[in-house]
Amino acid sequence: MQIAQLKKDDRFEGFVLVRTAEQRTSNANGSKYLDMTLTDASGEINAKMWDGNALPPPSGSVVKVRSTIQEYNGRLQMRVERMRAAAKNDAVDYSALTKVAPEPAEKMYGEIMDTVAGMTWEPLRKLMEKLLGLTKEKLMYYPAAQRLHHAERSGLLHHTVSMLRAAKVLLPLYPFLNADLLCAGVIAHDLSKTTEMQADEMGIVPDYTVSGLLLGHLIEGTHLVNEAARAAGVEGEECVLLLNHMLISHHGQPEFGSPKAPMFPEAEALHMIDDLDAKMNQMEDVMSRTPAGVFSDRIWAFDRRLYHPRYPGTEELPFEDADDILKKGGYDGLL
Amino acid sequence: MQIAQLKKDDRFEGFVLVRTAEQRTSNANGSKYLDMTLTDASGEINAKMWDGNALPPPSGSVVKVRSTIQEYNGRLQMRVERMRAAAKNDAVDYSALTKVAPEPAEKMYGEIMDTVAGMTWEPLRKLMEKLLGLTKEKLMYYPAAQRLHHAERSGLLHHTVSMLRAAKVLLPLYPFLNADLLCAGVIAHDLSKTTEMQADEMGIVPDYTVSGLLLGHLIEGTHLVNEAARAAGVEGEECVLLLNHMLISHHGQPEFGSPKAPMFPEAEALHMIDDLDAKMNQMEDVMSRTPAGVFSDRIWAFDRRLYHPRYPGTEELPFEDADDILKKGGYDGLL
Amino acid sequence: MQIAQLKKDDRFEGFVLVRTAEQRTSNANGSKYLDMTLTDASGEINAKMWDGNALPPPSGSVVKVRSTIQEYNGRLQMRVERMRAAAKNDAVDYSALTKVAPEPAEKMYGEIMDTVAGMTWEPLRKLMEKLLGLTKEKLMYYPAAQRLHHAERSGLLHHTVSMLRAAKVLLPLYPFLNADLLCAGVIAHDLSKTTEMQADEMGIVPDYTVSGLLLGHLIEGTHLVNEAARAAGVEGEECVLLLNHMLISHHGQPEFGSPKAPMFPEAEALHMIDDLDAKMNQMEDVMSRTPAGVFSDRIWAFDRRLYHPRYPGTEELPFEDADDILKKGGYDGLL
Amino acid sequence: MQIAQLKKDDRFEGFVLVRTAEQRTSNANGSKYLDMTLTDASGEINAKMWDGNALPPPSGSVVKVRSTIQEYNGRLQMRVERMRAAAKNDAVDYSALTKVAPEPAEKMYGEIMDTVAGMTWEPLRKLMEKLLGLTKEKLMYYPAAQRLHHAERSGLLHHTVSMLRAAKVLLPLYPFLNADLLCAGVIAHDLSKTTEMQADEMGIVPDYTVSGLLLGHLIEGTHLVNEAARAAGVEGEECVLLLNHMLISHHGQPEFGSPKAPMFPEAEALHMIDDLDAKMNQMEDVMSRTPAGVFSDRIWAFDRRLYHPRYPGTEELPFEDADDILKKGGYDGLL
Amino acid sequence: MQIAQLKKDDRFEGFVLVRTAEQRTSNANGSKYLDMTLTDASGEINAKMWDGNALPPPSGSVVKVRSTIQEYNGRLQMRVERMRAAAKNDAVDYSALTKVAPEPAEKMYGEIMDTVAGMTWEPLRKLMEKLLGLTKEKLMYYPAAQRLHHAERSGLLHHTVSMLRAAKVLLPLYPFLNADLLCAGVIAHDLSKTTEMQADEMGIVPDYTVSGLLLGHLIEGTHLVNEAARAAGVEGEECVLLLNHMLISHHGQPEFGSPKAPMFPEAEALHMIDDLDAKMNQMEDVMSRTPAGVFSDRIWAFDRRLYHPRYPGTEELPFEDADDILKKGGYDGLL
Amino acid sequence: MQIAQLKKDDRFEGFVLVRTAEQRTSNANGSKYLDMTLTDASGEINAKMWDGNALPPPSGSVVKVRSTIQEYNGRLQMRVERMRAAAKNDAVDYSALTKVAPEPAEKMYGEIMDTVAGMTWEPLRKLMEKLLGLTKEKLMYYPAAQRLHHAERSGLLHHTVSMLRAAKVLLPLYPFLNADLLCAGVIAHDLSKTTEMQADEMGIVPDYTVSGLLLGHLIEGTHLVNEAARAAGVEGEECVLLLNHMLISHHGQPEFGSPKAPMFPEAEALHMIDDLDAKMNQMEDVMSRTPAGVFSDRIWAFDRRLYHPRYPGTEELPFEDADDILKKGGYDGLL
Repeated sequence: MQIAQLKKDDRFEGFVLVRTAEQRTSNANGSKYLDMTLTDASGEINAKMWDGNALPPPSGSVVKVRSTIQEYNGRLQMRVERMRAAAKNDAVDYSALTKVAPEPAEKMYGEIMDTVAGMTWEPLRKLMEKLLGLTKEKLMYYPAAQRLHHAERSGLLHHTVSMLRAAKVLLPLYPFLNADLLCAGVIAHDLSKTTEMQADEMGIVPDYTVSGLLLGHLIEGTHLVNEAARAAGVEGEECVLLLNHMLISHHGQPEFGSPKAPMFPEAEALHMIDDLDAKMNQMEDVMSRTPAGVFSDRIWAFDRRLYHPRYPGTEELPFEDADDILKKGGYDGLL
Repeated sequence: MQIAQLKKDDRFEGFVLVRTAEQRTSNANGSKYLDMTLTDASGEINAKMWDGNALPPPSGSVVKVRSTIQEYNGRLQMRVERMRAAAKNDAVDYSALTKVAPEPAEKMYGEIMDTVAGMTWEPLRKLMEKLLGLTKEKLMYYPAAQRLHHAERSGLLHHTVSMLRAAKVLLPLYPFLNADLLCAGVIAHDLSKTTEMQADEMGIVPDYTVSGLLLGHLIEGTHLVNEAARAAGVEGEECVLLLNHMLISHHGQPEFGSPKAPMFPEAEALHMIDDLDAKMNQMEDVMSRTPAGVFSDRIWAFDRRLYHPRYPGTEELPFEDADDILKKGGYDGLL
Repeated sequence: MQIAQLKKDDRFEGFVLVRTAEQRTSNANGSKYLDMTLTDASGEINAKMWDGNALPPPSGSVVKVRSTIQEYNGRLQMRVERMRAAAKNDAVDYSALTKVAPEPAEKMYGEIMDTVAGMTWEPLRKLMEKLLGLTKEKLMYYPAAQRLHHAERSGLLHHTVSMLRAAKVLLPLYPFLNADLLCAGVIAHDLSKTTEMQADEMGIVPDYTVSGLLLGHLIEGTHLVNEAARAAGVEGEECVLLLNHMLISHHGQPEFGSPKAPMFPEAEALHMIDDLDAKMNQMEDVMSRTPAGVFSDRIWAFDRRLYHPRYPGTEELPFEDADDILKKGGYDGLL
Repeated sequence: MQIAQLKKDDRFEGFVLVRTAEQRTSNANGSKYLDMTLTDASGEINAKMWDGNALPPPSGSVVKVRSTIQEYNGRLQMRVERMRAAAKNDAVDYSALTKVAPEPAEKMYGEIMDTVAGMTWEPLRKLMEKLLGLTKEKLMYYPAAQRLHHAERSGLLHHTVSMLRAAKVLLPLYPFLNADLLCAGVIAHDLSKTTEMQADEMGIVPDYTVSGLLLGHLIEGTHLVNEAARAAGVEGEECVLLLNHMLISHHGQPEFGSPKAPMFPEAEALHMIDDLDAKMNQMEDVMSRTPAGVFSDRIWAFDRRLYHPRYPGTEELPFEDADDILKKGGYDGLL
Repeated sequence: MQIAQLKKDDRFEGFVLVRTAEQRTSNANGSKYLDMTLTDASGEINAKMWDGNALPPPSGSVVKVRSTIQEYNGRLQMRVERMRAAAKNDAVDYSALTKVAPEPAEKMYGEIMDTVAGMTWEPLRKLMEKLLGLTKEKLMYYPAAQRLHHAERSGLLHHTVSMLRAAKVLLPLYPFLNADLLCAGVIAHDLSKTTEMQADEMGIVPDYTVSGLLLGHLIEGTHLVNEAARAAGVEGEECVLLLNHMLISHHGQPEFGSPKAPMFPEAEALHMIDDLDAKMNQMEDVMSRTPAGVFSDRIWAFDRRLYHPRYPGTEELPFEDADDILKKGGYDGLL
Repeated sequence: MQIAQLKKDDRFEGFVLVRTAEQRTSNANGSKYLDMTLTDASGEINAKMWDGNALPPPSGSVVKVRSTIQEYNGRLQMRVERMRAAAKNDAVDYSALTKVAPEPAEKMYGEIMDTVAGMTWEPLRKLMEKLLGLTKEKLMYYPAAQRLHHAERSGLLHHTVSMLRAAKVLLPLYPFLNADLLCAGVIAHDLSKTTEMQADEMGIVPDYTVSGLLLGHLIEGTHLVNEAARAAGVEGEECVLLLNHMLISHHGQPEFGSPKAPMFPEAEALHMIDDLDAKMNQMEDVMSRTPAGVFSDRIWAFDRRLYHPRYPGTEELPFEDADDILKKGGYDGLL
């Protein structure tokens, strides 16, 4: 059973990932206990273990727990009875523990490499090859964000390839766009998320890096491009300048972090495809957790409630449940 | 020769469209003259006719002029020597006089009708058929806007079909979107521009209508949808409510005229495809009038200068000219 | 005794309305209890019932409780000892349970009908008669809002009649205003709150409706007006267009939900009278709960603290109490 | 004939007020001429006098002109043939030369004094008497603003009395408001416009004063109140503080010049009545210059075009004229 | 030991200042206890005393406690076993109990008086002498703010003298500035914080005053200046007007409380020096509590996280600790 | 005589700099003439030369003119009778032709070099030496901006040294700041203006560069720092990262072009000293052109009118003139 499916009074025994764990002291009677956040690919749950001798497991480690699900202040809570670290010979299904991109990283990476190999703008192709060489290792498992869209193992590849496909189907409709330049922008635009965020190989981001906080992936991205341009011997080529502009302008406006707004068509198209793909990814996520005919709670990234339409053929919630949800004032779309 | 190609000291004789014309009195010597704005598909020019007896031709009419091109305060001006109204037997090439969408209206309309015919969401299909029936006549020649994007004969069809094609290529990439709903939103989103603006059959918009100014095409659009729903006998169907929401939310935010932001995925996608298509259309237009390697002047719709990149293989301006343009501080991207 | 008058250590026995009720499990010892919000016309209080067998009463129902008032984390809490549903033969004073408009609904409705009957603009009068016919039933008990101003049984009528009286006394001062048009706008402006919100006959609003969230009462209001115009046979009359504009513009600005700002004098006057009446209603409410010479806490709707002036003849708080309140940093104006 | 009624080719002979006058040199032939702005109560017109010997008359003086009306660059222009200063025995109708409040200053002032005399809040009444004593002289002729609302001789009294009447009819509807305090706020709120602006006895404002620009009438108003409070011996009374707060908060928000937003009901009501009266005055003005069924140009103070509704019984423009106006894209609501 | 140095399981016995204290009732078992916030110059801590008979000590009083430090919900908490009021013969080190400006108040005040004595602008010097005479008493111990910068005993003097020194070193670099005027502005700009806030002699601010909330220290400051000008016999002098403008404009913009932006160089310089000194004071404070190489949490006054650079020679946190802090997502810069 | 001192009817003969020059055709009679903007260090003037044979001189060249000063539409205009290019043996005083920084470039550059030489943070010193080596040539004559502050030959050095002096006098007051880091930030912050703008050796900027428009001097500055760091062999040092952050954050906020706000004390101090120095420079400039006791027109960079105070001892305008200026509604502070 996955965490998202747990209900009050369920019994749960299985492997989970430790996000946080600390030892605390009860105010009521002074006894010690563990306060933890445990996760799997489906969601997370607060857990208590009332054992003064238990030590908090390292965050990021996998543990096996035996527990009961209770409700506290209207939220589910896992009361852990026994817990141990996962052992080498445990048959842990790691893919069930963290969210992972829906396609294999190698396949997605291959699609990017093929695109680059097909570029006819020579200096740009050389630049892109070097750029991917500099970042490949982390690119294989990095998520696209800490919490918002594509927050999953290889999420950065997922987001990039998804955008690349959108770019490719739109290019024939707007033939004045330069295909190589737009594809290069798509592939390069978020590469410096690998230097902006700290992520482990599960795709989890505990924090940003020092340089990530002081410069951000837009500026760091241009430094990476400059490094690749030197390595490729294409410094001073127009395409280096164009790509740098695309990187710093891809958030569209100053208040979203871009010191310059997009000033040529491929830069504008990059910004819009990025925005479209991120929004569609988040919308799909909210819909998957909101029954048809029902509004979600306010979603932070959109600053509004979202509605799951009753498309023909969709299975609706039984009347009483939907009614109940409406009475409570909305569905908590984010678990 | 087209107006956009005229240079100082050229002679011009041919047919042009009258945008405005007024009789004025010279301050210097009290004599009367005509002050006119004359246009063709390529652009517009100020014109003077120093003849106290000449009466101003009606705006929207076609006239034949014989003239010399001069420069006044750094701008070209047409000094008209003779002028007469176009006669029935003149071989006027009307397509040279106003900008026209690049595909025939009937072809574009057919593409829309085919899309509607293929919808499997029954009440939605019926609704769309009635809706198109109510607006077809004006839809054939209306522009999409008075001045900004797709300001051309049948520009509304052009913009709609362009968006429809974008929607159709994106749908396979985001399969959780309902194709019928998104296509219906694309087709319906600007239909009430036909009640918001006054346009003549040349696709020129002298002003907005009273109801257009008091309500706007978003609100008027919902009234049109309600009328079509009654005619189709589908009032109360979820799709009517959804389409109404898509209409009022397609500008994305309150400050751009949408009283509600998009609340389900197809509404969000509609907004983004609309924005993308309008921006690409304007970008292409500016690029076509800005030489490679040069910045345009500040473009009102973007609130910034745009740059025409030096793509490989593009013909650049000869050095002296580009240099000259840079010295003058930019290229006047909007003629 | 009313809930607002309860103090620590009071005993309370009487009828109250259940706003929310849930069964929970104590973290400390695992025993079950009820966590409830109980209300009457004067305010609300959190209540606990430490009885593992008690089931939560339905929200919206009336119960009789026997209890003691305690303090927990600086807030009063009702410790319920016994509780039962109100029976048919209980002499429950329903008017003490929810806030009700200060005048009878029939009287207020009559005042509106008289105004409409006196209109000399024929098509407008017919339109208004149909419009009121379509909404009368719900209008009798709907509140004007879920939480802010006039959140009370028949509050919508209360707000409407209060504005109507303001309009009538102001009209002689600004005689260029058309009285029929302004009064029609006042009467119609919030009628679609009856389709935007779900309310029970106590005037309590658990949530908005689906169409209310997707369209809002401004847009739904124009649909209602169009329906009434068809029924009255006055479609196409200028007054229908004017009233529709007044509806969509009555929030004054895009960021408050109006896709168009008011464009003629009666629309502007409607917006200002609406704002004035709502603000005065809320100010009166805050003053009634804040002692003279004291500041309230920050009031959400005003985004600032409010002050109750020491008017001559007002009874001030005894010195020590006011002093005490100031030391605590302000008076919690909203219970 | 009034300036607003002049048409091309009219002859005009009569008295006008000189707003500005300067001697200039023609670029074309080096001859000198006078460039003037001449006004009367109905509007203003640019005037040229082609006489190298004529000296510019002082601004603010009254002259008699004999002239022809011409059109230059689409605007009317007065070509002055003869001009002389008004003499003592000329029968000049000064009320036709500048806009004047519709009621006599003494009558309006009396209404204010009666209101003050009837106040029962003793210290407040004393304060108001002193305050009016300090400002009476200028109050009799000052306008309420340089250009926007009530820009007319005694316009400040007009605006104040108009607001006072609105306050008095609204007070019975919101009986929790203190009548003396609200009326005092209305009377005092703009009194320091007499120190903020320089105005001559015609009610014309050439500029602001140094202290008006450095402090503004809100802050200067509190200084005046403090001075009056000392004179009245009521320093330290609550009403002095309340009135000072009403003065600095009457623009409602920081971006409109109020360092504090209104914090008690009378301050909020003052702000709203001020806003209502100013907007109604401007709306009436625009309507009076816009034909029924027609939109004005964009009005600066509202930042939008306004519409003059076709009320029943209003005389519409003949069809061709209204049509013509619509073709030109709107009516120039501000002459 | 200071409060900021306490760790879990420490024993603490000593004198502390009572910020707040209330008697509460335990939800779990109904027994009474004291809930207190206790402070010294280094920080504050929540404290519980589980004694049903203990009465809450007055806020602002000094008590001696004997206690153990525990952790509750991840925060330290003091469990008080015994508590008594400080007695006259206790050797309490008051300087350890509240934050105090780093230099003696008399020394700082002397520096201000010397500056005034040296002014050569006669009326301005007289004005400043009177102004300081009116405020000296409170100025000696008032803090500069309730919570943000210089929130310490004599913090207002600290901030003023710090700015005065900055002004004096900058004046030779911008010699067109009038030194007397700038210094006068610096000295006077926040003097009315003594009427805006209530503060006790420890420099602690429980709340603002009624006039402080209704007018604010900018407006009250001009009233104080006017009072001093009358006392000094310099009313009507240009310097009084200039100083009044400097007071109301020193927050720079309307949204920060200034009804006018600075309009002459000394007013602009005052605003910038004020901003600089407040920001440097807060930055220093955050740095002192954030280890080198580490980011603080989001700091409210800056609305962002701050970074303590690794300057050469600074002692860094041992690797494991810094690593640990990064894993937890940042350092809680505000204790 | 300097241009700024010219009055109507003056004769002028001397050397001036050509900013723009074009041949035009008179509308009135078809004859050709030159339309030019001529400048010297004191200001600029429009000039006409009514000679159909005269060719426009190159912009940036120096010419000798013989002319009369006339007034046209209220502005002075130079009527050029004779004009010739400056010859080699003409004794042209170039310092009178363009605004030049008040100290020699070499002296200012020396002050910067001395500061760098004294840095004790080794890698930072090396970095700065390389950075200055990369930019020295242009730094000697570049202005700090195209139009706003320090728009003069060597204005960039002027601004930098002025800030450096401010930093040095402030450092002892805020001793927690690292002096080397702050000075390095000051010296480096605008160095990439040399790549952002095109300037000739007179310090005049006809336009921005392509990379300047696409990236801006903040981002280009980090590229320059990276290049210098590689040359100095200090890549990866903390000081490189810190300096890069200072460069991108020195405009303070996103809406002023900074993708990150300042996150450590030296970055914040840099931003504030930059702002202070630019504002003081502009204020001094406006004061120098505005008489005491008079307001300037609205100044674009401040978005408000500025006032020149009547300091004791300043010479005021004779009464009639000041009066005259006030009547005209303000002094045109920008020539």
